Amino acid sequence: MDNIKQLLKVAAKRYNKLQPHGEHARDLVFAAHGKLAGECEFVGYGAYAGRPTVAYNVFSFQADVSRPVRPDIYIGDPAEFEAKFGAFIENLRRGALTWSHNEAQIANEVVYTSVLAVACCYDLWQRGSRKTPGTVFEILMAAWLQEMLPRAAFSKHIPLTELLEDTDVADATEEDVEPAPAEDGDGPGSVSTDLVVKATVDADRGIVIPLKITTRERIVQPFAHQRILDSAFGAGAFRSLLVCISETQLDDKTKSVKQVCVPGTVKLFQKYLAPLSGLYYCDVPQRYAAADMQQVISVRSVGEFFIDVAVLLNA
Amino acid sequence: MDNIKQLLKVAAKRYNKLQPHGEHARDLVFAAHGKLAGECEFVGYGAYAGRPTVAYNVFSFQADVSRPVRPDIYIGDPAEFEAKFGAFIENLRRGALTWSHNEAQIANEVVYTSVLAVACCYDLWQRGSRKTPGTVFEILMAAWLQEMLPRAAFSKHIPLTELLEDTDVADATEEDVEPAPAEDGDGPGSVSTDLVVKATVDADRGIVIPLKITTRERIVQPFAHQRILDSAFGAGAFRSLLVCISETQLDDKTKSVKQVCVPGTVKLFQKYLAPLSGLYYCDVPQRYAAADMQQVISVRSVGEFFIDVAVLLNA
Repeated sequence: MDNIKQLLKVAAKRYNKLQPHGEHARDLVFAAHGKLAGECEFVGYGAYAGRPTVAYNVFSFQADVSRPVRPDIYIGDPAEFEAKFGAFIENLRRGALTWSHNEAQIANEVVYTSVLAVACCYDLWQRGSRKTPGTVFEILMAAWLQEMLPRAAFSKHIPLTELLEDTDVADATEEDVEPAPAEDGDGPGSVSTDLVVKATVDADRGIVIPLKITTRERIVQPFAHQRILDSAFGAGAFRSLLVCISETQLDDKTKSVKQVCVPGTVKLFQKYLAPLSGLYYCDVPQRYAAADMQQVISVRSVGEFFIDVAVLLNA
Repeated sequence: MDNIKQLLKVAAKRYNKLQPHGEHARDLVFAAHGKLAGECEFVGYGAYAGRPTVAYNVFSFQADVSRPVRPDIYIGDPAEFEAKFGAFIENLRRGALTWSHNEAQIANEVVYTSVLAVACCYDLWQRGSRKTPGTVFEILMAAWLQEMLPRAAFSKHIPLTELLEDTDVADATEEDVEPAPAEDGDGPGSVSTDLVVKATVDADRGIVIPLKITTRERIVQPFAHQRILDSAFGAGAFRSLLVCISETQLDDKTKSVKQVCVPGTVKLFQKYLAPLSGLYYCDVPQRYAAADMQQVISVRSVGEFFIDVAVLLNA
């Protein structure tokens, strides 16, 4: 696990400086994937009782189990994963405008496998680091979007607090405290969006990409940020695409898996707070795939997310 | 502690049915206050290094300490607390329109002492119940507002999710999961405001009173809710008054206390999300009392909150 923590540290450092970090991201992913393949059992845990039912596995090590993982999306075999990972990077470099269902599906599987491999290692061997898998998700997605959009302008955040005229508001030393428990921006003294991409540095429009492994009550954040962006820059200047991995919870008693859904909340915020331009999951909750949700917000796979970004940036 | 838990259970049950629960709230508060007075030391912990510095105590029991408590606001002496509590209830029943600084100060001290007495008992003897002190704050404030406004119409929430036409959205069984870690409304399937007061049942305007012991990153919630209320009912139909106790953090290393402040965040949300009509603390963080903040949002004591409610409802 020390090796994985060190690889993450290096990748995070490069990402924080907005340097290319594709190789470092790849090393991290394969170290985690290999560790799970070598040391864990990947065993059935239970099903989500939907229509149809959806089987979930867990990685099991001694008495501990990881979060739920879908064996039909997670690529367990190391050789197959290496091949598909290579194909995914090739496909990104070609650009996603020509992708068909096949390329999107490979992308979805590789993103899911990569992020969950690292997350499950932290579940099993570093349980205290609750925030780390979310950080990893951001680092990996940034690396892959850079592969797809070599000429685009990336920034880690839009520091919304700086929209205020008195830019010294986020100053006081009393803010130098332990970070708040949820992962919002840079700490209690500032409010920032997640990753931002523009076609070029000078472009007057951009895409904001909030990245969440689970949303929980933090689902309000991307909608609130979109509203602030609409108020400050005018509607249309920035469009938000919310990208998630999976919303599941193990139920120890019944050995089943819940798909956590808040369809009413999403509809409410979409209608009365500010509309997001898309919602993406590697493992789309069945409730979100239903027609009544799709009328309110486009819900698609993370594989299709790459296509939508390419279309929006016309890249 | 079993006694306190039982008293809380009864008070909560009555509050959930919107039945008068002033006596039950009082019993709970005095049980907690008496337990701390009888079993704990109330000792200096450290200071907040502001201008001026502010001294904070903690309740100490064996090796454990409670959250920080201001000895100049907390009424430690049981006889003095009983007298001031009685005066506070009398003052509420007279209505707050005629309150002077003196009545407001008693109110502020009694609210602070009551809420922190119960919260500190949970800190010391029931550490797992992180959400309980917030619930207690809501139950107590509702009891006291009922004393002041016997003819007003109270509701626990505005269930915002029900604004949607398809009211069956918050239905799916998959929402029957462990509650999300933060205290937002009724669980992951719905979005609700906190306490709502109208002058009468038929009044077309109301006051929404989000009650938070600490806000942390959840500070976005009342602003987002206000925005939704403005969008759905028109600006002015509902006004939000955010009421907090204290925003502090112990620093074990330096034995000092931090006042946690997010002035930039509050200004940002106030300007670009939706404006709250007031922000209240028993222990107002110094940074929030500064002139630049007061220009953006009225920040006053919880004692003054009762006056502002009375004025707004003209009661």
